[in-house]
Amino acid sequence: MPADPHRRDGIINAAVLDLLRTKGPRSVNVEAVAAHAGVAKTTIYRRYRDREEMIKAALESLTNPPPPDRPEPRELLAWLIEQSVNAIESGIGLGGVAALLTDEDTTFIELIRALLVEHRAALATELDNAAVDAELRDDLDVETLLDCIVGAYLAERARRGGVEPGWARRVLHSLWPAFTRQPPPSGGLP
Amino acid sequence: MPADPHRRDGIINAAVLDLLRTKGPRSVNVEAVAAHAGVAKTTIYRRYRDREEMIKAALESLTNPPPPDRPEPRELLAWLIEQSVNAIESGIGLGGVAALLTDEDTTFIELIRALLVEHRAALATELDNAAVDAELRDDLDVETLLDCIVGAYLAERARRGGVEPGWARRVLHSLWPAFTRQPPPSGGLP
Repeated sequence: MPADPHRRDGIINAAVLDLLRTKGPRSVNVEAVAAHAGVAKTTIYRRYRDREEMIKAALESLTNPPPPDRPEPRELLAWLIEQSVNAIESGIGLGGVAALLTDEDTTFIELIRALLVEHRAALATELDNAAVDAELRDDLDVETLLDCIVGAYLAERARRGGVEPGWARRVLHSLWPAFTRQPPPSGGLP
Repeated sequence: MPADPHRRDGIINAAVLDLLRTKGPRSVNVEAVAAHAGVAKTTIYRRYRDREEMIKAALESLTNPPPPDRPEPRELLAWLIEQSVNAIESGIGLGGVAALLTDEDTTFIELIRALLVEHRAALATELDNAAVDAELRDDLDVETLLDCIVGAYLAERARRGGVEPGWARRVLHSLWPAFTRQPPPSGGLP
């Protein structure tokens, strides 16, 4: 066990997230995390009051790569797609998503939903800051669009057991007209 | 227990689907289904060789309402959205989706994935028959669009613990430009 407390935090966080992703939230408790991280339970209890604090710290350690600098709208959508996959693959994992869908573990679910609200707010701010408003759809519903992106990943994974290469490209291509301002129709309104 | 064998099948299918939706595929076995349906295990074994055949029959009993007659493109997209929700709420349930995401039960997963392939093929045929091709996007990627729709439902459910009223309207509004042919851009190609 390294003496550096930051590295020690990192090792505990990594063990929490690894158990969460591979075995789901039910498997994440102080005893299992201690065993997985190779530390004594007392090491964990010295830092966190309980399971909830330990999970919260691990989830808060997840960070998002910043958006590209002065992105084109297409780069911005590509970044949103990358974020959405990242939030699952390097975040709560499919075990975490499954628990959210089945309301499996109340403590975990409350923590993760609160963090998802923050995560969404941060993405919305990035979108505002990206200053490509003029090229985005006037009535862009960011929440629903993000649900479509992350959901497309979940649906393909559920349906196929894996996500085919080219998934991000296909989603970018499909959702592009739903993201950007389209030229006015030549005929009547749809 | 009714003497009519069709009604008897229906009662067994309903018990399989109800257990699947509420408790997930692991809970679906001949003993639990017999108890839930109020029939003897022998009644089930007289009809189905094993658990797999019993689950298969129940999943195959799920039918989809037909698309509207001579639909406008907007009605067609609304119908696809309704189908997608229906496939979860009246179909395999969130417990079933969670099992697909976590590869929880191999027998169940193989059955359901095979049926999903058929379900998707049937929807693609309906889309072809709807004869609104001229108004749909030339490069429409039906699979990815359907993943976005069903996925948007899963993502909102995971994130919020429920789907807000107006969900279908929001998804219709968001995905409309991704579904229909847009007027050609006045400037360069995006």
